[in-house]
Amino acid sequence: MAQNVTPPRGMRDFLPAEKARREHALGVIRGVYAAHGFDEIETPVMEDSSRLHAGLGGDNEKLAFAVMKRGLTPDDLASAAASGDALALADLGLRYDLTVPLARFYATHRAALPPVFRSIQIAPVWRAERPQKGRYRQFVQCDIDVIGDATPLAELELLTATVATLDALGLAGCTIRINDRRILQGILASWGVPDDLRERALITIDKLDKIGVGGVANELAELGAVTADADVATALEGLTSADWHLADGVVPPPAWLDGAAYADLLALRDAMPEAAIEFDPTLVRGMGYYTGTIFEIAHPELGYSLGGGGRYDHMIGRFLGQEVPACGFSIGFERIVDLLEVRDDARPRAVVLVHDGNVPAERLLAIKAELVASGSRVRLERRVKNLRALLDRVTADGFDAFATVNAEANGAASLEFRELTA
Amino acid sequence: MAQNVTPPRGMRDFLPAEKARREHALGVIRGVYAAHGFDEIETPVMEDSSRLHAGLGGDNEKLAFAVMKRGLTPDDLASAAASGDALALADLGLRYDLTVPLARFYATHRAALPPVFRSIQIAPVWRAERPQKGRYRQFVQCDIDVIGDATPLAELELLTATVATLDALGLAGCTIRINDRRILQGILASWGVPDDLRERALITIDKLDKIGVGGVANELAELGAVTADADVATALEGLTSADWHLADGVVPPPAWLDGAAYADLLALRDAMPEAAIEFDPTLVRGMGYYTGTIFEIAHPELGYSLGGGGRYDHMIGRFLGQEVPACGFSIGFERIVDLLEVRDDARPRAVVLVHDGNVPAERLLAIKAELVASGSRVRLERRVKNLRALLDRVTADGFDAFATVNAEANGAASLEFRELTA
Repeated sequence: MAQNVTPPRGMRDFLPAEKARREHALGVIRGVYAAHGFDEIETPVMEDSSRLHAGLGGDNEKLAFAVMKRGLTPDDLASAAASGDALALADLGLRYDLTVPLARFYATHRAALPPVFRSIQIAPVWRAERPQKGRYRQFVQCDIDVIGDATPLAELELLTATVATLDALGLAGCTIRINDRRILQGILASWGVPDDLRERALITIDKLDKIGVGGVANELAELGAVTADADVATALEGLTSADWHLADGVVPPPAWLDGAAYADLLALRDAMPEAAIEFDPTLVRGMGYYTGTIFEIAHPELGYSLGGGGRYDHMIGRFLGQEVPACGFSIGFERIVDLLEVRDDARPRAVVLVHDGNVPAERLLAIKAELVASGSRVRLERRVKNLRALLDRVTADGFDAFATVNAEANGAASLEFRELTA
Repeated sequence: MAQNVTPPRGMRDFLPAEKARREHALGVIRGVYAAHGFDEIETPVMEDSSRLHAGLGGDNEKLAFAVMKRGLTPDDLASAAASGDALALADLGLRYDLTVPLARFYATHRAALPPVFRSIQIAPVWRAERPQKGRYRQFVQCDIDVIGDATPLAELELLTATVATLDALGLAGCTIRINDRRILQGILASWGVPDDLRERALITIDKLDKIGVGGVANELAELGAVTADADVATALEGLTSADWHLADGVVPPPAWLDGAAYADLLALRDAMPEAAIEFDPTLVRGMGYYTGTIFEIAHPELGYSLGGGGRYDHMIGRFLGQEVPACGFSIGFERIVDLLEVRDDARPRAVVLVHDGNVPAERLLAIKAELVASGSRVRLERRVKNLRALLDRVTADGFDAFATVNAEANGAASLEFRELTA
């Protein structure tokens, strides 16, 4: 009997054309990152439940899919029912990001890794979010991280590798916005935001794109983070138009500007003279674990970010019991793959052999083998009455040419290929 | 504080060298299968729990990892405790094979696929097995399937593509053992095995490698499948040494031999004259869903199978509500990747730039960019006192050459590279 056969809610099947596009993008990304000295690793899709819920995943922890213990007894179930704690029945969970697994991986394998470890992770993550357009419950993240380098060279290697990757994907001309969490702290201090409200104040400022200067000022006032909202709105207005002139010696630097952090950002800008790097003192980036530089990359023709990252010097230490500097950049694979044009010259010539049922199998296979050996991709198609419909279909599938094999005809050499045009 | 940081039980992290080897193997496999006309697809790692437990997964169903419903209430927990049914708390599960998802995928997307659909699936599956050497709870399966072709051309395309893939991986010279479930049914009928015991009798015969002719004969007798064990042992002895002479016209074919099935096998053999194809009437293959041809591929120098598959004409119909012929072949990715030698010429030249901390970052990046542009993979390494140890380490990581960048030295052109030899 026919059943409901859709994939689980918020998750996707990939048909051949889409899968090919994704694999092409992955190949380009892997190749460029590897050339830039990054090494790909892989971790299991599951981590211990306690590790996923250790406070390093922010809001994503609530979205983790929990994997049930095997062999649960009625007593286990009764005990969970009594406590109301469903999570007590889970020992594993699906990862919701690649950063928690990376921290765990690094702690496990540090002795086998170079002193500065540059990792690539390209892998799916799972979040039980309310499905909506462009947001999925299984999606691929694409992270590079530099672990063990406290100098700005880490940020520079991340940024240059990312720009090169986006270039190779046909997304040249991206703009990088940068900031530093220390500068944000200076701004919050200048507004008199108490320490215990700073994390929430940052979350509010992060909504600037959505709720605007007025909205942020109001929300900060409601939080009790600032006493009056008028000055903050004016200050925010000024910050949104800030750029590198802030401390160029022509005008005195503002009191809130952390000089050391700003000098680091200037050094980053100067080391990448060909990149379009903008200073944005209102850039926050969501995660609570960032400690220094933060950055976000966008394409001027697109209304959304293509990726971002930053320095998170205290996180790896959580699993290792020892501080290790770290810095990462994640590009939005699902967004990028939608923008990608796969060039025709990036794939082999694809040909269709149309045959009627009475051509001997060994003959078909011999012709196919010869074409495969010469570098073609070959599909056999049984002849149907409506040949035009068949050819239209294989043309839509991306095939370049076809030939007809008849039972009577001579060997492969005499096959006449005709080009298919889309 | 340092924590337990191992991956979950029975699951593995892949460090850079191993990950590179796996990606290399995947690239080869994808390339050859695609050339042979197969199309890669992808499905979510989770399927609906009811679908995973619909009786199509055999013993693997019991090994499925269950994913808990989100937002379980104390009432839900109490109700599961009352019934003792833990699975009532799960709505999803991790797939334990790629065949159940393929059947579901085909039912969902049939209208968008060609009449004969040749799929590639290369993806992880999960089974909560007792971990042991060479057996993991997360491992990659690598399946090709031909859906919609009832003719032996399906088997032939699977076998030729698989042989070509193993050749390309450096595993030339494999032997294919084939059989047909109809022939096994003939053998069981000749022994008088009642219909309701046939599935269990096949499971017993499948243990021939492990428990031998005597063991199988005893177990069949214990099952009550055969009345005396002596004749069966003799018959099995004869079957294990059977080959293509069974119906060559010189001797009369045995009464149990299904003539139509045997003719199909002969046709397969004759259509692949260059392959080593052996007839083995005792070959069973585990899964209950096989209906016709079954095959297994092995390398003469290895004591284990490298893959196998067969025809399963009634399974796709379970989700579609309509019969569709299908045939598949799965190669043992985890075994194959262990055998693989990655040739040096398969990867780009890898160079290390050793620098001291006072080389300006923009200078280092410019040299790196130039080397990357010329096709090299480049890693920066900060100079340490013991340069020999550093060079030994990067040599072990597979790097080919190094150069030292000093703060005083001239531009990139003057860099002197020295080869590293392992």
